[in-house]
Amino acid sequence: MSQDLDQLTINTIRLLSVDAVAAANSGHPGAPLGLAPAAHAVWKQMKFNPRDTKWINRDRFILSNGHACALLYSLLVLYGYDLEVEDLKQFRQLNSKTPGHPEALDVPGVEVTTGPLGQGISNAVGLALAQTQFAATYNKSDVQISNSYTYSFLGDGCLMEGVASEASSLAGHLQLGNLIAFWDDNRISIDGSTEVAFTENVVERYKAYGWHVLEVPHGDTDLEGIANAIEEAKKVTDKPTLIRLTTTIGFGSLAQGTHGVHGSPLKADDIKQLKEKWGFNPEENFAIPAEVKNYLSEIVKKNQEGHEEWKKTFDQYKQKYPELGAEVQRRLDGKLPEGWEKNLPTYTPQDKAVATRKLSEIVLQSVYDAVPELIGGSADLTPSNLTRTTSAVDFQPPSTGLGDYSGRYIRYGVREHGMGAIMNGIAAFGANYKNYGGTFLNFVSYAAGAVRLSALSHHPVTWVATHDSIGLGEDGPTHQPIETLAHFRAIPNVSVWRPADGNETSAAYKSAISSTSTPHIIALTRQNLPQLEGSSIENASKGGYTLVKQDNPDVIIVASGSEVSIAVDASKKLAEEGFKAGVVSLPDFFTFDNQSQSYRLSVLPDGVPIISVEVMSTFGWSKYSHEQFGLNRFGASGKGPELYKFFEFTPEGIADRAAKTIQFYKGKPVLSPLNRAF
Amino acid sequence: MSQDLDQLTINTIRLLSVDAVAAANSGHPGAPLGLAPAAHAVWKQMKFNPRDTKWINRDRFILSNGHACALLYSLLVLYGYDLEVEDLKQFRQLNSKTPGHPEALDVPGVEVTTGPLGQGISNAVGLALAQTQFAATYNKSDVQISNSYTYSFLGDGCLMEGVASEASSLAGHLQLGNLIAFWDDNRISIDGSTEVAFTENVVERYKAYGWHVLEVPHGDTDLEGIANAIEEAKKVTDKPTLIRLTTTIGFGSLAQGTHGVHGSPLKADDIKQLKEKWGFNPEENFAIPAEVKNYLSEIVKKNQEGHEEWKKTFDQYKQKYPELGAEVQRRLDGKLPEGWEKNLPTYTPQDKAVATRKLSEIVLQSVYDAVPELIGGSADLTPSNLTRTTSAVDFQPPSTGLGDYSGRYIRYGVREHGMGAIMNGIAAFGANYKNYGGTFLNFVSYAAGAVRLSALSHHPVTWVATHDSIGLGEDGPTHQPIETLAHFRAIPNVSVWRPADGNETSAAYKSAISSTSTPHIIALTRQNLPQLEGSSIENASKGGYTLVKQDNPDVIIVASGSEVSIAVDASKKLAEEGFKAGVVSLPDFFTFDNQSQSYRLSVLPDGVPIISVEVMSTFGWSKYSHEQFGLNRFGASGKGPELYKFFEFTPEGIADRAAKTIQFYKGKPVLSPLNRAF
Ligand SMILES: [Ca+2]
Ligand SMILES: [Ca+2]
Repeated sequence: MSQDLDQLTINTIRLLSVDAVAAANSGHPGAPLGLAPAAHAVWKQMKFNPRDTKWINRDRFILSNGHACALLYSLLVLYGYDLEVEDLKQFRQLNSKTPGHPEALDVPGVEVTTGPLGQGISNAVGLALAQTQFAATYNKSDVQISNSYTYSFLGDGCLMEGVASEASSLAGHLQLGNLIAFWDDNRISIDGSTEVAFTENVVERYKAYGWHVLEVPHGDTDLEGIANAIEEAKKVTDKPTLIRLTTTIGFGSLAQGTHGVHGSPLKADDIKQLKEKWGFNPEENFAIPAEVKNYLSEIVKKNQEGHEEWKKTFDQYKQKYPELGAEVQRRLDGKLPEGWEKNLPTYTPQDKAVATRKLSEIVLQSVYDAVPELIGGSADLTPSNLTRTTSAVDFQPPSTGLGDYSGRYIRYGVREHGMGAIMNGIAAFGANYKNYGGTFLNFVSYAAGAVRLSALSHHPVTWVATHDSIGLGEDGPTHQPIETLAHFRAIPNVSVWRPADGNETSAAYKSAISSTSTPHIIALTRQNLPQLEGSSIENASKGGYTLVKQDNPDVIIVASGSEVSIAVDASKKLAEEGFKAGVVSLPDFFTFDNQSQSYRLSVLPDGVPIISVEVMSTFGWSKYSHEQFGLNRFGASGKGPELYKFFEFTPEGIADRAAKTIQFYKGKPVLSPLNRAF
Repeated sequence: MSQDLDQLTINTIRLLSVDAVAAANSGHPGAPLGLAPAAHAVWKQMKFNPRDTKWINRDRFILSNGHACALLYSLLVLYGYDLEVEDLKQFRQLNSKTPGHPEALDVPGVEVTTGPLGQGISNAVGLALAQTQFAATYNKSDVQISNSYTYSFLGDGCLMEGVASEASSLAGHLQLGNLIAFWDDNRISIDGSTEVAFTENVVERYKAYGWHVLEVPHGDTDLEGIANAIEEAKKVTDKPTLIRLTTTIGFGSLAQGTHGVHGSPLKADDIKQLKEKWGFNPEENFAIPAEVKNYLSEIVKKNQEGHEEWKKTFDQYKQKYPELGAEVQRRLDGKLPEGWEKNLPTYTPQDKAVATRKLSEIVLQSVYDAVPELIGGSADLTPSNLTRTTSAVDFQPPSTGLGDYSGRYIRYGVREHGMGAIMNGIAAFGANYKNYGGTFLNFVSYAAGAVRLSALSHHPVTWVATHDSIGLGEDGPTHQPIETLAHFRAIPNVSVWRPADGNETSAAYKSAISSTSTPHIIALTRQNLPQLEGSSIENASKGGYTLVKQDNPDVIIVASGSEVSIAVDASKKLAEEGFKAGVVSLPDFFTFDNQSQSYRLSVLPDGVPIISVEVMSTFGWSKYSHEQFGLNRFGASGKGPELYKFFEFTPEGIADRAAKTIQFYKGKPVLSPLNRAF
């Protein structure tokens, strides 16, 4: 292949991107123009099959500067993914396959949803981590089924984001040699020159993280330099590589090198001169020269041959290692091990009171051996989150002597946001990875940006979120969640569990590990909770259920987690006062909302006033209750039980408010809050 | 003073901390034992007055590793702040003055609330920034009224957090020479050795950020080395300094150097041997040797003399520069300029439709000159957030030629979390700073950790949060807020404004700039909105008000922001169908909740079904409505107006649901949702 053909391909990518942005009259032409050479250099040597986008041993390409998505869509069209020029013409239009940022669910070939800065490169760390773990677990010296790379482009914006700093620091520590990132050093961000806010020495920073750093000073033109850098990167197997690519934003445009080309379409004249300069017909849009088409078809063909080769290798593997082979096949089929859930522990009221964080540890301990795709870690709170099972091996570079790469326990350090984004990357790798991360519930908020993308992208990751209320005690209001559950419950497609005892904790994990498209946050107590009469995995798996049943109750108390057992005691107290109080446990709004209306109405029926009890913000609870008892202020530092008393989350405190609720609704017709007008 | 006396002081600090943790049987003795020498070295040369903790020219001390608060409380007791040994004995007890993490509102002498890792050092950057801006604005070559330093201690955990990375990178760029930070390099975090997750080269990283880095290898004992490092740090005036202090966690304890001393009280035997080793009576707790008391009293006395000197200097200043002097005095008194709010623009329905982000720019433009304490910036979205007024000068090191230190516009770079924490630091500086930061509403979530602390600590900072809904259009679901308002509304003490037009935007800023204790998030549109009939600053300043009044309405539509004008059109549509629909604009829940119950009931009365309309999560709206129309799914990429149609946020879509609401409640008694049983 000639240099000319490469150049023609690069200019084709550039002009497709420019035309897409122009057609939309919206979007970001600058980065595609600057990054097309690197994109071509990466893709022409990448391992992928446009007709099987989930091939487990493909290389992954992550566009962390997702606003440059016209570049990615152009590549996908050119390489024959299920995306056409017609789709490019619909760029950024409603219901198109080419949304304004790369949406993994909508666009075949997009690995992860990007746009929020810093997330993509952190996902890439997760992908590289997962590949490393997968390879170390299943590769054999004579048959290797996993050896793929993760490539990522990132801009100055990503480098400024703390989430990327966290993930990059960890990637260096973990020595992820299969990760190759390109920094688009174009010295421009939206505010103008990066001189105004970003003058740190990125190269030295990444070296300090333990990365291998290369520089390509002429990234606009030096295709060979880029190709060589990729080769160099691959030679260093114990460090991730950052390639500093000096480029010109909007290369070729009359406004190149300015922030004017970052986020606005090029003017018609400008596009015209570009096309003329590069030997394209200025009157034609979305042109794909035949020789480019042929050239890339050849690359795809070779790649598909490589894929066929891999299939043979995998067949060999299955013959030589039938047990592991079946396990890999099962994982690739997205199936959990048959009967894994039988390992989930169950409890009776005779069992002793245990903190749900401890019950969570028992679940992990119980299912860990049966589910090899269950991996996870904690953001430096292992002894508090209880996320590490006794048999676990740390995921660490073998050279450290601290573990090995087949280890399933990840030491994330105090990096909650990085952890969240890495978890998304692990989930995106495929191979049925079910991965979890532990921190205090209050600090899941640090990772809000990543949690939102888990939900949007359908990553079934799990947060083991302990110390879930003022019950944590002395650490005080900086550590006590108030708004946290409301926040995450308000995100579409997040299952926010707050189990009340052992059976409910098992149900939470059953839901989390079975899930293929919904992230889970499991809120767990520091303090001990009794095992409830009437709870079961089956009941709790409906998200909400009647725990204390009453005929014609005067009131229903609906509660979650640590307040459920107090509500049960309140119900007894109310009985002494002559009131019949039913109790409903509602461990997960999301799951409950997915039940039939008739089931839900059987739990929260018409004709009975309902009071909700949860020791944090009442925000959102009126969806299920007429009156809300909660904590709409910050907590306090003190012993957990004293705080519960101080804020009146006691049988007496609840009974008092329930009695007032009965009184208030006496003689008034009461509709269940589940009845809606539309 | 003798070395012995210093050593005795250090051991007194250590043992007070150990005794406090032991008395609580809860807390963190490890870091106080390791950091007491550095704490003493810093405090013995710091400028402060325990009897006037708000003195504007005091040095600030920020304990970023807030879990080490026993150290800070011990210092405050020893230096005669309004905190006694009796308070130490109540460490971590409910309603004590010594909560489990340093709470700025509860403990005199605590500058900022810390505990959530990474926040304190980032607050320190904000404090240093504010001091720099204050000094550059008011110091004169012949009279200097501001020359204080900001000191911060931080642990490995803070260094792992992305928020600290963001703030540190910016501090290097801004060349904040008045910031001196100590890294407690004790090689231990909760998961054990930092070797398991944190092996980057911190020294090189901070050099890459542009910091001056010093090392004190024997931080447990080398008091002179620490003192010298402070002197060295002060000599470098154009770089922040990081002093790497190699220490032993739990120094002196039998378990020193292990994570066992991090977060658990020392055992009785261990405390005994410590006291014996250091010449204290092992039977006595909370001992303060008389010579230590005298020694520190001398330091305080000198400091108070320094404070008196400063007062004289300030008097001189006021004489020589009466206008500026009066301005400084006004700011120190916490008063805004008389009549500033008269600059707020007002609108009539004849004025043209304008995006509220643009209306926000007009407000800033209108009040900027009148309010010199109004400073702010944006996280690299200046041309989108419209946060920079035309007369603004960038806050930049003068040597860069990009601005100067009296500049009031801060280029934060793409660092939302860092920005949030720095904003808190600026607010904590005092001098009536009213500071704002711009980003897209969706990315305020990246800063959730800092927003929560704004609320808890009563920092009146303001987020200019533009692009507040699917109305932003093509950027798609990664950028379109759904849960964001619910999240922040659920945090106690956050004013979340979503103005519907120009008058409401002015009201939002009036509230924000007047506030002394409540952070504000002002959600603003990308798209144009009409100026409403019936809106006014006065009305909106109640948080909610009747915009379209009807006698005996069939339904009330309550809406916020961009949906209010559509609700007004829906009301007209309903009139055509023979229904009387009132319209309520509810720009801020927090402000509305603070109105009298009778006022609120006049807006949302009994007897009328109420439907809320907001183009995002309905979560929480049932507080004010019986039925909710919102968007409980992620948005989509497409043109803004098409998205509004697609999701039916049109006069027809609203009228249809309002009609169903009327139908549903027909013949049923309807109570206002504001009526509560308790
Ligand atoms: Ca850039
Ligand atoms: Ca440490």
